[in-house]
Amino acid sequence: MTGWLDALERLAASRAKAGLTRQLRPRPADDFVVDLAGNDYLGLSAHPAVVAAAADALAAYGLGATGSRLVRGSTDAHAALESALADFLGFPAALVFSSGYLANLAAVRAATAVCDLIVSDAYNHASLIDGCRISGQRTVVAPHNDPAAVAAILDAHPGRTAVVVTESVFSVDGDLASLASLHEVTSSRGALLLIDDAHALGLLGPAGAGGVAAAGLAGRPDVIVTATLSKALGGAGGVVAAPAPFIHHLIDTGRTFIYDTALPPAVVAGVHEALRLTTRADDRRATLAARAARTVARLTEAGLEVDPPAAAVLSVPAPGPEPAVTWAADCRDRGVAVGCFRPPSTPDGSSRLRLTLNAGVPDQAFARALDVIVECAP
Amino acid sequence: MTGWLDALERLAASRAKAGLTRQLRPRPADDFVVDLAGNDYLGLSAHPAVVAAAADALAAYGLGATGSRLVRGSTDAHAALESALADFLGFPAALVFSSGYLANLAAVRAATAVCDLIVSDAYNHASLIDGCRISGQRTVVAPHNDPAAVAAILDAHPGRTAVVVTESVFSVDGDLASLASLHEVTSSRGALLLIDDAHALGLLGPAGAGGVAAAGLAGRPDVIVTATLSKALGGAGGVVAAPAPFIHHLIDTGRTFIYDTALPPAVVAGVHEALRLTTRADDRRATLAARAARTVARLTEAGLEVDPPAAAVLSVPAPGPEPAVTWAADCRDRGVAVGCFRPPSTPDGSSRLRLTLNAGVPDQAFARALDVIVECAP
Ligand SMILES: Cc1ncc(COP(=O)(O)O)c(C=O)c1O
Ligand SMILES: Cc1ncc(COP(=O)(O)O)c(C=O)c1O
Repeated sequence: MTGWLDALERLAASRAKAGLTRQLRPRPADDFVVDLAGNDYLGLSAHPAVVAAAADALAAYGLGATGSRLVRGSTDAHAALESALADFLGFPAALVFSSGYLANLAAVRAATAVCDLIVSDAYNHASLIDGCRISGQRTVVAPHNDPAAVAAILDAHPGRTAVVVTESVFSVDGDLASLASLHEVTSSRGALLLIDDAHALGLLGPAGAGGVAAAGLAGRPDVIVTATLSKALGGAGGVVAAPAPFIHHLIDTGRTFIYDTALPPAVVAGVHEALRLTTRADDRRATLAARAARTVARLTEAGLEVDPPAAAVLSVPAPGPEPAVTWAADCRDRGVAVGCFRPPSTPDGSSRLRLTLNAGVPDQAFARALDVIVECAP
Repeated sequence: MTGWLDALERLAASRAKAGLTRQLRPRPADDFVVDLAGNDYLGLSAHPAVVAAAADALAAYGLGATGSRLVRGSTDAHAALESALADFLGFPAALVFSSGYLANLAAVRAATAVCDLIVSDAYNHASLIDGCRISGQRTVVAPHNDPAAVAAILDAHPGRTAVVVTESVFSVDGDLASLASLHEVTSSRGALLLIDDAHALGLLGPAGAGGVAAAGLAGRPDVIVTATLSKALGGAGGVVAAPAPFIHHLIDTGRTFIYDTALPPAVVAGVHEALRLTTRADDRRATLAARAARTVARLTEAGLEVDPPAAAVLSVPAPGPEPAVTWAADCRDRGVAVGCFRPPSTPDGSSRLRLTLNAGVPDQAFARALDVIVECAP
């Protein structure tokens, strides 16, 4: 049976025609490109203390966790990180997953153990959308960042217990959800609020505790937070922080927790060190804020459209998918990595450059990168 | 709104009543327990060469991959591992994921781009089941390891293109699927065969190339293989190996590939070194075979029921859920970690100890562990 390969080739051809072919471009360790595309916002991924902590745990535990969390995969390093993350995020309990993706699948699904309606922001991340899907629960998609629309949806479903699912800082455009208003809407209607804090953790809130903390919602009994340990915390893995009964529910029933190998202890220890550094990284957060202002000024001056970012993700509209691709490729050829988002990866069907700020990039390189972006603009 | 917490407490109480509460037991780095519960079958997780390779990559790249594979997350280490895994598994192309769970979600879903029926073995792993679910495609569950039943299901759906989904060595009972017969059934009916080789990789087949290779199915144009890098390969991550158009399809459309942070380069490099060791580990595979025989002899002699394992997973029936839990706890108290599976984690509703063999456990410790298991038997 090779007809399926022909069918796949036909699908590939139609993706190619639509400009939707993707290509892996491996980078070497000594890659001198200026990174305005990754998510290592605080520049902690290669911080000597993070690398040293990971190396120590690697030597002590070996490479893999050797089993799922409930069999052999829970180490003291996992327990310590979970307790630190709960403190940091301001919730009674926290649970580490092997990725933010699997954390989101588990969290959304677990919420539907007690909720029979999901209200999901139109711009939510793929992992949240897949969480809705895999839960099998009724899902209504709400217009992007529109608390009044969420209120109307909840009011239209009076008999149901709902969970409202949103990001704090959205991954594509970098805008911030109106979390305080959204929480007023949910709490006054007996709904839960699940917030993916992936792109705000380490950047917003007191000591970088995230967008949920910044909105004054840390520790609320009707709020669930998820995040990834792979962005500002410079490593890999995911976390859910919530009231303790929700975490117990995840431990007992979360399929992507129970049936998945634990995050490697070395990664856990490295992330824990990055968390310690994050709480003391007001200087790095100030650098990011200054660079955000500078980027907006420089691009606006050059006639480009860009909104001030809520954290470290900026979105710059391009005239179309091909110009966006060329723009990003020209930047790369001149040593600057930028993101390029085209439909269907953009929720509104537009094409754009996605720039991310990284406090680890030296000042001069950052200044040069802005020049390159402007000079390569279509 | 705290009614949801009461609802969760009620759910927890009914799980407790059914004996289904789970508890995390973190282990220290200097844990002297004999491990007959984890999945580090070849004992490579703490092998000095594996740890050294991971440490080198950690120093060179930093801790995190800093982005998704298509943005900043692909390194030379990822590309090298993918090419080595394709060679090892005997397929034209391979793609690394951040976990076996996410690899399975992507592979099953991608197969439904060209298939409109899934036939899934009744004992399949949670990640395969969730893959069926998230695909939204029609799924028929087939009786466990029964090629004739699969044939009948396919024959009952003449107009459909099917993908048949199975494990090679099953994770709970350690039995081996009749892959050659299954492939005869699928290939003669124009169906695809997707095989999760998680528990056979490194253990069966020439140079440990896995259960698919052992069955002579490596590189077949109608076969897709998935596996995890967290068991015999001692690390973390997942892989899909298949004809190239399927891998391209995953790169272009696989949500759990595109929207997930890449596996940390240090883990990738450590797994790559473990893969090199695996191809030369006939001695370790011989140790495992000898221990399998010894375990069966010892337990049978003691009046316990146990089937000879296909690879390194053994299943020992217990008289019920409570005796199983007590048995495992008594073993743990005497320094031997064994797995304990109860419903609903066991597909057939029975309770059992799950023993795994680990070539890294010293001979004496292994002998003592067998004594302990027998002495603690209910
Ligand atoms: C908003 C958001 N949530 C979740 C994830 C998934 O996290 P991870 O990469 O750890 O799987 C990402 C990105 O990767 C993200 O941007
Ligand atoms: C058969 C099988 N498939 C897939 C997985 C998932 O792999 P991972 O732990 O890398 O997510 C496991 C166990 O963890 C498994 O036993």
